[in-house]
Amino acid sequence: MSELLDKTDKRTKYCGLFTSDDIGKNVCVMGWCQRQRDLGSLIFIDLRDRTGIVQLSFNEETPEDVYQLAFRTRAEYVICAKGIVRHRGEGAVNKNMPTGEVEIAVSEMKWLSSSLTPPFAIVEDSDVRPELRLKYRYLDLRRPDMQNNIMARSRITKLVRDYFDENGFIEIETPNLIKPTPEGARDYLVPSRVHPGSFYALPQSPQLYKQLLMLSGFDRYIQIARCYRDEDLRADRQPEFTQIDEEMSFVTQDDIIEINEGLLKKLFKEFLGIELQTPLPRMTYAQAMERYGSDKPDLRFGFELINISDAVKDSEFKVFSGAVADGGSVRAIKIDGGASFSRKEIDSLTEFVKTYRAKGLAWYKQTMDGAVSSSYAKFMTDEENKKILEKTDFKPGDLLLIVGDTKNQVVFDSLGALRREVASRMGLLKPDDYRLLWITEFPLLEYSEEDGRFYAKHHPFTMPMEEDIRYLDSDPGRVRAVAYDIVINGMEAGGGSVRIHVPELQEKMFSVLGMEKEEYENKFGFLIEAYKYGAPPHAGLAFGLDRLCALLMGIDDIRDVIAFPKVQNASELMTGAPAPADPAALSELKINISDKE
Amino acid sequence: MSELLDKTDKRTKYCGLFTSDDIGKNVCVMGWCQRQRDLGSLIFIDLRDRTGIVQLSFNEETPEDVYQLAFRTRAEYVICAKGIVRHRGEGAVNKNMPTGEVEIAVSEMKWLSSSLTPPFAIVEDSDVRPELRLKYRYLDLRRPDMQNNIMARSRITKLVRDYFDENGFIEIETPNLIKPTPEGARDYLVPSRVHPGSFYALPQSPQLYKQLLMLSGFDRYIQIARCYRDEDLRADRQPEFTQIDEEMSFVTQDDIIEINEGLLKKLFKEFLGIELQTPLPRMTYAQAMERYGSDKPDLRFGFELINISDAVKDSEFKVFSGAVADGGSVRAIKIDGGASFSRKEIDSLTEFVKTYRAKGLAWYKQTMDGAVSSSYAKFMTDEENKKILEKTDFKPGDLLLIVGDTKNQVVFDSLGALRREVASRMGLLKPDDYRLLWITEFPLLEYSEEDGRFYAKHHPFTMPMEEDIRYLDSDPGRVRAVAYDIVINGMEAGGGSVRIHVPELQEKMFSVLGMEKEEYENKFGFLIEAYKYGAPPHAGLAFGLDRLCALLMGIDDIRDVIAFPKVQNASELMTGAPAPADPAALSELKINISDKE
Repeated sequence: MSELLDKTDKRTKYCGLFTSDDIGKNVCVMGWCQRQRDLGSLIFIDLRDRTGIVQLSFNEETPEDVYQLAFRTRAEYVICAKGIVRHRGEGAVNKNMPTGEVEIAVSEMKWLSSSLTPPFAIVEDSDVRPELRLKYRYLDLRRPDMQNNIMARSRITKLVRDYFDENGFIEIETPNLIKPTPEGARDYLVPSRVHPGSFYALPQSPQLYKQLLMLSGFDRYIQIARCYRDEDLRADRQPEFTQIDEEMSFVTQDDIIEINEGLLKKLFKEFLGIELQTPLPRMTYAQAMERYGSDKPDLRFGFELINISDAVKDSEFKVFSGAVADGGSVRAIKIDGGASFSRKEIDSLTEFVKTYRAKGLAWYKQTMDGAVSSSYAKFMTDEENKKILEKTDFKPGDLLLIVGDTKNQVVFDSLGALRREVASRMGLLKPDDYRLLWITEFPLLEYSEEDGRFYAKHHPFTMPMEEDIRYLDSDPGRVRAVAYDIVINGMEAGGGSVRIHVPELQEKMFSVLGMEKEEYENKFGFLIEAYKYGAPPHAGLAFGLDRLCALLMGIDDIRDVIAFPKVQNASELMTGAPAPADPAALSELKINISDKE
Repeated sequence: MSELLDKTDKRTKYCGLFTSDDIGKNVCVMGWCQRQRDLGSLIFIDLRDRTGIVQLSFNEETPEDVYQLAFRTRAEYVICAKGIVRHRGEGAVNKNMPTGEVEIAVSEMKWLSSSLTPPFAIVEDSDVRPELRLKYRYLDLRRPDMQNNIMARSRITKLVRDYFDENGFIEIETPNLIKPTPEGARDYLVPSRVHPGSFYALPQSPQLYKQLLMLSGFDRYIQIARCYRDEDLRADRQPEFTQIDEEMSFVTQDDIIEINEGLLKKLFKEFLGIELQTPLPRMTYAQAMERYGSDKPDLRFGFELINISDAVKDSEFKVFSGAVADGGSVRAIKIDGGASFSRKEIDSLTEFVKTYRAKGLAWYKQTMDGAVSSSYAKFMTDEENKKILEKTDFKPGDLLLIVGDTKNQVVFDSLGALRREVASRMGLLKPDDYRLLWITEFPLLEYSEEDGRFYAKHHPFTMPMEEDIRYLDSDPGRVRAVAYDIVINGMEAGGGSVRIHVPELQEKMFSVLGMEKEEYENKFGFLIEAYKYGAPPHAGLAFGLDRLCALLMGIDDIRDVIAFPKVQNASELMTGAPAPADPAALSELKINISDKE
């Protein structure tokens, strides 16, 4: 049934581009049948391609064999049609579609391909379950919204590349089969056939290579690089993801921020038509935690954290005073107009904060007619209650949500997440209201209670702030890093740091991370060696391209900006990857599966 | 010894950009010490970055501490210097360097980094053994020629991307963790932790995904994609390499050729300043074998193959006549002016053709003064000898090189390689003489004597020529494919094909390749299924970017256009990849090393 193209089948132009200027022209069009309508003596086919739809028309003047073919044409059949463009006639014009004035009176037609009935309709916003969409991704990608997403991503990528090119950055490809140097997230490993027992790792980022490129004098590096992390996936993570990866030499944090504000300005202008005001606001990590309980605060709404520890520290209510006494704190967020939250809703917020390890959620509300209800007020003195309301500037109609804990981090994490959750429920997360800021002065290290050691918060190559270097031995947790994140609407869109370029300091850093000389020499010896041959100061940043695209398109699920994403268990539903390998291949690699479970 | 940059250290511009226009200006420069010359009361430092060199000067007016620092500065130290630009003085101008008129009289300086003595000098064309260069790749990449190569590659890449963007191609990223579907070269495998016993493969190319993107209606796709092949490496192969990967819908072979000739025209014009004449010549595979013994003929020189089977088929000299009688052939190449080749040189050519399975090399030469010598003439009649000389249009001063074999492929392979080898020895392979052509009508299948079955010459998704489809069952070896390669100076720069878009034909193709329905359903079921929902005719091509860059730069070794290449045994000398993995990681993956050897 399928016919092949021959040399005379030359497409005139894309379907969506026909206008009244084409009337009277002989044309050739190709595309998919969006729908066929048989009106008895008249048949219409809406022909679709990536640009839109044009109407094909068939009537008593159409050659009989062509008419019969049109009669039998079904949705998603692929067609090559030739004919003459004509006006639809006054009553038939469709003002809602760009090609709505014209149609093509078809005189020749062939089926390039027929189609089974697709498992879901190829239309915008079709409400299809995600698993089905991903299994038939090639059909899902035909839907106009997915077509637009993928084409928009291509455009964003081009804008990014052009910007860095205009600014003297060199695109350099770094290897993807690299040495395994586990530090942080889990590597994907690739067994070597030539060196049995040895492995490559897929890069979590081009970090070391881009630093070495700075040592080589390339000065400004850019790569849009695939990166890999074998982590248990969250909704917004993929086992492979794409980074806009940058590095510059002879620069400070301010230079990196400036060049990237230029990029964001360009993207917002050219992609969204928004004039971004720069310089963007900056906030230190400590300030962000204190005000928003998060190092990626969403500034589209208020609900800042208010420390009420002073007001409650002497209370008989031990839930509050005990937290303060044990070195923690009690903090509140005030939801303006939140008194309308029902008891049931507040209960669900209580469940919500528990996932952030909070033991509970205390609350206080007063309706506009003065009725007060609270989970804690009865355990406090009037004086204490009054202090809290004063401190939080409480007014009738408001809702106070309070978390106290002996660990400040628990208070921050739970209230930081809670303010966003409440904002979400109140409809305050408008995707087209963009609030950007830089977070700076991150802690260099993070202590793991579980492992009893420090880990690098960013990565082990991050430069400590000069004035904090002296605490590296005595109080490592206190050392701040010259590291920075760019946060957009509560999402970390990118992050980076000034790097250590002094070999002695790099060795020191490895020691602080608990590595013996032998271990770090084995893992990173080539890097330390490289630094001994003249290393320039350098710094960089990486954006998550998937996330950045989603943010610019106002999309929540990053899978909607990735052509062929994987699902939470790291498999691809269309092809069924991963899959068992050929036993002969495994034997060549000299590996055995130890336990298939 | 190292100092950090502070906010006042702002580089004025790159070293290589200073001219007499800058005289009198206060400037700040940063870079590497190329060399330090101490002339007693005068010190010069040549400061280098990616743009070139500027001279720093220190004399009795220089502050003492700065002078002392300059005195102790050594090669590859990294410096930040401030001072005033001045004319060098008439006698001191260096006309050979762009900044040769000026120098910077330094008043402030700091060492950002010191350096050990590098293992080789950071200069152009340094004659350093490859292993040392690769071990210290970060230093090798500082050399001006390597800097230029990597920067040129970035420029070529940009030109490619811009061209496809201008022509309506959409850049789409395809997955790198894919389903293993071995067919052809060996896959790199990636064990899945979440699905023990299952594996991802790294893609040998985005082939299936780009075809699915055509099914999705993206119409024109481009990706500069990393690809992976676990093959035993030849000099011009890397385990990971980069492809310019393209695919178009609703097109024929001519459309693909036209769009790619446009690309080549642009690259040759903008990168080399050469006006490429298009359309480029085309030659069928059969013609190329007949005339050049190769499907990637180098047209920079002649030495075409001449079939002398007719002249020798009745000879008593069985080496020749026997080859013809058994279905093979005897062919010659005539080397104009080749009589100057010594017996010893001809012997080494004989050894050369043996690596292509030729049993020997027959030859005939006549010097300008008439002296004839030959390996075979004495075994032939005068008439036969005369016929050969006539057939090959032989003249005094020439050399005939002849291979006969019962297998034509051996004759083609050995003479095809020999003509290039001879041309190389005669200095005829000029890198800046570019000869491009398309090879078309490749065989669809290749028969493996060893395995007793056919393999796809290109890949199993290649469309057979319409007029040959009827031979798929009866005489598969005869079927030609709608496949094409672009050949530049004897190198395959790229290749592609029209794809099968008809599911029944695709299944037929899998059968011809000896797969049972169950096997191909298991491996490629998702693809066959996809084709049942309306597939457009589509076709594509991929360039090897590494090779294309090398060709455009006139470089032989592709490792010189790759920042961090691997060596023949697939290891990276700088980092020591691959390396043993953390046993805990292997245990999580549930894999054992069965035999470390």
